[in-house]
Amino acid sequence: VDSKLPWVGTTIFTVMSKLAADCGAINLSQGFPDFQAEPALFDAVHRAMLSGRNQYAPMAGMPELRQGIADKVAALYGTRYDVDAEITVTAGATQAIYTAIAAFVRPGDEVIVFEPVYDSYVPAIETVGGRAVYSRLTFPDYRPDWNHVKSLIGPRTRMIIVNTPNNPSCSLFAAEDMAVLAELTRDTDIVVLGDEVYEHICYEGAHQSLCRHPELAARSLVVSSFGKTYHITGWKIGYVVGPQPLMTEFRKVHQFNVFTVNTPGQLGIAEYLQDASRHLGLVDFYRQKRDFFREQLQGSRFELLPCRGTYFQLARYGAISDKPDREFAEWMTRAVGVAVIPVSAFYHDGHDDRVVRFCFAKKEETLAAAGERLRRV
Amino acid sequence: VDSKLPWVGTTIFTVMSKLAADCGAINLSQGFPDFQAEPALFDAVHRAMLSGRNQYAPMAGMPELRQGIADKVAALYGTRYDVDAEITVTAGATQAIYTAIAAFVRPGDEVIVFEPVYDSYVPAIETVGGRAVYSRLTFPDYRPDWNHVKSLIGPRTRMIIVNTPNNPSCSLFAAEDMAVLAELTRDTDIVVLGDEVYEHICYEGAHQSLCRHPELAARSLVVSSFGKTYHITGWKIGYVVGPQPLMTEFRKVHQFNVFTVNTPGQLGIAEYLQDASRHLGLVDFYRQKRDFFREQLQGSRFELLPCRGTYFQLARYGAISDKPDREFAEWMTRAVGVAVIPVSAFYHDGHDDRVVRFCFAKKEETLAAAGERLRRV
Ligand SMILES: CSCCC(=O)C(=O)O
Ligand SMILES: CSCCC(=O)C(=O)O
Repeated sequence: VDSKLPWVGTTIFTVMSKLAADCGAINLSQGFPDFQAEPALFDAVHRAMLSGRNQYAPMAGMPELRQGIADKVAALYGTRYDVDAEITVTAGATQAIYTAIAAFVRPGDEVIVFEPVYDSYVPAIETVGGRAVYSRLTFPDYRPDWNHVKSLIGPRTRMIIVNTPNNPSCSLFAAEDMAVLAELTRDTDIVVLGDEVYEHICYEGAHQSLCRHPELAARSLVVSSFGKTYHITGWKIGYVVGPQPLMTEFRKVHQFNVFTVNTPGQLGIAEYLQDASRHLGLVDFYRQKRDFFREQLQGSRFELLPCRGTYFQLARYGAISDKPDREFAEWMTRAVGVAVIPVSAFYHDGHDDRVVRFCFAKKEETLAAAGERLRRV
Repeated sequence: VDSKLPWVGTTIFTVMSKLAADCGAINLSQGFPDFQAEPALFDAVHRAMLSGRNQYAPMAGMPELRQGIADKVAALYGTRYDVDAEITVTAGATQAIYTAIAAFVRPGDEVIVFEPVYDSYVPAIETVGGRAVYSRLTFPDYRPDWNHVKSLIGPRTRMIIVNTPNNPSCSLFAAEDMAVLAELTRDTDIVVLGDEVYEHICYEGAHQSLCRHPELAARSLVVSSFGKTYHITGWKIGYVVGPQPLMTEFRKVHQFNVFTVNTPGQLGIAEYLQDASRHLGLVDFYRQKRDFFREQLQGSRFELLPCRGTYFQLARYGAISDKPDREFAEWMTRAVGVAVIPVSAFYHDGHDDRVVRFCFAKKEETLAAAGERLRRV
């Protein structure tokens, strides 16, 4: 086969989860909970199915779910998106991101991404013939270098992708970052794509959503995920909000990519979303897990980096090994029995700060069992 | 906004379904059933959720579902696809088609499509910078003109899309068509993309799946849909099968487009799929609806074209009106109270044979009510 994308391999998440399963390791690699969501949510979906709501949803998503999203976003960030024209339900956040890129990026266009960069963005850009342009976050603080970003902006710049709370670095964009971003994109037609799937898991201060900054919101498509919020990563339901002119372009591709999203799942979530305590309580829920996991690693030889957001924890392992992180992650999975993600997988040039990522969206017993193994390393 | 796809509008299915809803018309436009699927299927999904199967499925799909697909395809068409490497579960057939195009078509590449052409193909091609090349089926028989197709094949031809049973023309590719297609693509690296979502709804002879023809199967990705087969178009679960080298390329994009597909839905379908009578019985189920609907139109001024497959019925309306079909379809929706699809929507140049498409995947009472209105026209 004459490959269009010869340099694209299998996503690191599939690679590590498969290795974990093959080795019987505790899987702290791919980001998903090992605990159960609430039966109330399942019952709502079951009711929707039994009542015959099994055919195509409207292309933009079920109206009741879009209404719930509009209300949530307005309550949290003060921006009111139009329910009909400015909100689209997607088959997970990944599909929203892929579709946004496909809808705007032309062959030869450039997209600025921050490294470490979530692994779906760049292949999506390359699939439509675009080119990723990289700006590395500082190490070990993972802060944007705005002078560098500024130097990358040019006539071919079509999009900038902002992911905050940031996966995998667990850092946050601050209000000042948003101000600079607004300044740098003022009077350009650059589209800002916000990946905010961890919007409810921000441990320090208020989440700086693009939706909170009117000037940026006017040029942004902002993506979130019910999978991350409601502990149902396998349902693949997320959404994107943005001003009508951008959403019109988004839907041109969305309608021919997936057309619509699982109807009974949308209805179940619409019902469940009514109770705001569910997403508002998430940060405390995960703070407790974060702190518990960090305690588990007290007395280990891992050096923990700050975790300001997301349900991941980064660690340096220089006191244990001088292996490249990919090798170290494989060794951890096979020999220690704890699967992790090597952070170099998120750099296009294999840049390696010798850091691995743990997912702590797990039951305490899982984290404790992992802790025991990790302290012995 | 500087639009990448200024010529792309809203899909005709959304336009007509919305108009139908606004006018309170009987909606025979967009293809979906108005009857209920079996509770056994819903209960299987509910059980999967309650038992905690709510996290990411493997990227290729749940193994039990892939096994069921492999067995079904082998039983029907004699080709055995490898469960791990040659089958991928998708978020509906549309996503499979979009992804296959994105994975193979480069800027400047050409894709041969037959007109009338299902409306998602061409925008998908254009999103990645490819170019659609059109071969019109004859009228009113809707047969391929292979000499014309042959004249279109050249060094830039990357893909040919074959849709049989064909939507919207309700025609079938015959075994001889497949033989010619094999000959025309022999010793080329053209990929054949098969849209076979109506594989179980073929009223005349055996469905000529690409999977049935070993030489073609070796260069084909073949797409099907559980939504069409199990009366759950809103679940958005389908699949694609193909030889490993093609599937490897497909997954490079799939993993970054949707990553995975609704887990509990996959598990429910995997259970349900065990009973082959469900898909084997579909043809008789829909034949009865087809015949019932055609009877309803006896004595009307619509001239019915043959329906050899799918759950659609085409009709000429020259005895009623000389309006273009788009105008006629709108008038039907508003004035007659029956929404239909104008077939010119499936021609890139607006070619108009003055034909509209009815969907008869409806309860008898719906078809009877529509029939009454249609006989009065
Ligand atoms: C799409 S699988 C990966 C889940 C995730 O977001 C992560 O582990 O970072
Ligand atoms: C994806 S909505 C359209 C459903 C369908 O296949 C049709 O009506 O032809």
